[in-house]
Amino acid sequence: MALIVQKFGGTSVANLDCIRNVARCVKAEVNHGNQVVVVVSAMAGTTNQLVDWAREIGPMHDAREYDTIVATGEQVTVGLLAIALQNIGVDARSWLAWQIQVHTNEIHGAARIMDIDTNLIRERFACGQVPVVAGFQGISPKGRITTLGRGGSDTSAVALAAALAADRCDIYTDVDGVYTTDPRIAPKAHKLDRVTFEEMLEMASLGAKVLHTRSVAMAMRHNVNLQVRSSFSDAPGTFVVDEDSIVEQEKISGIAYSPDEAKITIQGLPDQPGIAASVFGKLAERQVNVDMIVQSASTDSKKTDITFSLGRVDLDKAVGVIEVNRDALGYSGIDSTENVTKISVVGMAMRSQPGVAKTMFETLAQKGINLQVISTSEIKISVLIASEYTELAVRSLHTAFGLDDE
Amino acid sequence: MALIVQKFGGTSVANLDCIRNVARCVKAEVNHGNQVVVVVSAMAGTTNQLVDWAREIGPMHDAREYDTIVATGEQVTVGLLAIALQNIGVDARSWLAWQIQVHTNEIHGAARIMDIDTNLIRERFACGQVPVVAGFQGISPKGRITTLGRGGSDTSAVALAAALAADRCDIYTDVDGVYTTDPRIAPKAHKLDRVTFEEMLEMASLGAKVLHTRSVAMAMRHNVNLQVRSSFSDAPGTFVVDEDSIVEQEKISGIAYSPDEAKITIQGLPDQPGIAASVFGKLAERQVNVDMIVQSASTDSKKTDITFSLGRVDLDKAVGVIEVNRDALGYSGIDSTENVTKISVVGMAMRSQPGVAKTMFETLAQKGINLQVISTSEIKISVLIASEYTELAVRSLHTAFGLDDE
Repeated sequence: MALIVQKFGGTSVANLDCIRNVARCVKAEVNHGNQVVVVVSAMAGTTNQLVDWAREIGPMHDAREYDTIVATGEQVTVGLLAIALQNIGVDARSWLAWQIQVHTNEIHGAARIMDIDTNLIRERFACGQVPVVAGFQGISPKGRITTLGRGGSDTSAVALAAALAADRCDIYTDVDGVYTTDPRIAPKAHKLDRVTFEEMLEMASLGAKVLHTRSVAMAMRHNVNLQVRSSFSDAPGTFVVDEDSIVEQEKISGIAYSPDEAKITIQGLPDQPGIAASVFGKLAERQVNVDMIVQSASTDSKKTDITFSLGRVDLDKAVGVIEVNRDALGYSGIDSTENVTKISVVGMAMRSQPGVAKTMFETLAQKGINLQVISTSEIKISVLIASEYTELAVRSLHTAFGLDDE
Repeated sequence: MALIVQKFGGTSVANLDCIRNVARCVKAEVNHGNQVVVVVSAMAGTTNQLVDWAREIGPMHDAREYDTIVATGEQVTVGLLAIALQNIGVDARSWLAWQIQVHTNEIHGAARIMDIDTNLIRERFACGQVPVVAGFQGISPKGRITTLGRGGSDTSAVALAAALAADRCDIYTDVDGVYTTDPRIAPKAHKLDRVTFEEMLEMASLGAKVLHTRSVAMAMRHNVNLQVRSSFSDAPGTFVVDEDSIVEQEKISGIAYSPDEAKITIQGLPDQPGIAASVFGKLAERQVNVDMIVQSASTDSKKTDITFSLGRVDLDKAVGVIEVNRDALGYSGIDSTENVTKISVVGMAMRSQPGVAKTMFETLAQKGINLQVISTSEIKISVLIASEYTELAVRSLHTAFGLDDE
């Protein structure tokens, strides 16, 4: 008998028929003789409606009240799923964060789980009852409802799996696993049987939005055995595992892309020590997250250019910060564009195969694609290219790295 | 400085603009130098949607899960109203039943409040904060969310007013008070400045659905000073007061009518002791509530007829019960109709004025209206008439008892 946490996202519980389908999914796992804990999100669309109301009611929003409002979405789903389970003969009951005691810190709207009291849930196992737990929510030290931020239900599920020392945490979603790249762009993309936590982290942060980054990091830290699978199919999904579980990896794992990028170039900065720190210090003060950075070699004129990428949502704010500090920074010009996409090759394999960068750059060069910024980590190489080349770049790299489905 | 509980129903918080209006209502009371506690219902329509979902998800519904689902409506409104108040400079916070500790029994879906811990709310008064409390909900001894049944937010408000020993409990609704009769039927109806609890109880149970019957009974028991008023107007509403507060009452207070009635006549029952007990015993076993009863005088044939009224929703069930027991009861025929309305004259005044019944019966007779069943209590006379005479009867009685607005 295994202890399994099953998590179902918003699209899996989008309406009453979907919720009945989820109930059958849970029952199948119970019928296999397993102990099951279910974590659910709000019905797709519900949270958006609640967030809109909370924002529209007035310009100032008390984050504690915001959380009280948006946490109701999950409260509805746990009740409905518990009823759906009872109707097909599965003993089940709903649990809200304050009933279990899912303790978080006080950062409302983006709270972090501190610990979970699993005693009450464990008691129910003895009676064969399936706990249906509201994801996304917790309670603060002051007894207020908190929420974990977007995608927080993944984190709830992983945290519960860690606290219960579950054998597996299955994240059910509307795709049947993690793919070598986006199948909408590259039809030859195929599902991966396994990826490592590290690879999943890179892919999640690079726009392959299957799992929430925080949930992957938490699973890695607590070594939770994670599976991404579809609630509309019985097929096994993709297991996210410890590096040691993958004996040898010859191929890179996937090609990720992130279209929501922008690029800024600051020209003619004085080439003096500390100038980069000044620029990025000003941006950090205003909570602008900068991603890739290139500083051009100094010329005879003692001037330098700095180019960096950032999220498209932050572009206007960043340009504003730089323009306000024109005198302090002493640059001659600024240039910005939203017409860029980040393309990344991700895989543990590249640590043992030095030719990955060469293959990547050659492949893109052959297609006439100019690399605007390059950045590398131990298991990832990212480049910034003009957006119109996105599909061409992803497909070419997918073929070049031998990932095409046969 | 007075302590005032303000309760706003679903139509008063139907959308964000309404909620902003409620916030201004609350602020006005705070600006008068009063301590204010607010109780709110769900946005109009929300509870119906939640109830529909809970019913549609499966034929069996666990009432505990049902309550978990439907209680979310109020949770959304308290959060939104707290934000709306903060936005116009009123310090406010939302309170859910489990946060305050509104203890109820375990009758899910129709729970009764046992006691309310007011310590946390009182602490906030010291800081000048306005507590915004979710109506309709409580927690059971087992820590599950309960709901108080339809109209339960009125009861929440009165219970809170009693627990806090509030100076006044204002029930804001979409009408500006209690009227002598339904103004849609009798345009000359006028607002009452005061009614007694007893009168309000009779009127509420007779279809004048301004206040929930349970809330009136609770206010009477705890002597809570109740006011019914409009959230869309500053005008004083109707005060519901103790009998002693009304020095002398010459007129009756109002004409109520209840259109959701039905009538059953059982013919040719054996005229023997205990026959009425048999009939109504069978109906009680199936939870059919019978209202007015008339048993005709026995004839030479030793047979008797029994006529009674009941709620229209129960008609089919009641007829079924009687038909199933035809042999046991030994009657010859059964006759039923939905074409009846109950008209009632209500007022403390009738205790000192013996002519009320005579005036009522004469007025209706002059209009050619036949009285099918008559029933009286100390402060009320009700008659059952054919539905098509409803408007004529209400208007004639309103005039006959001197209630027409001049």
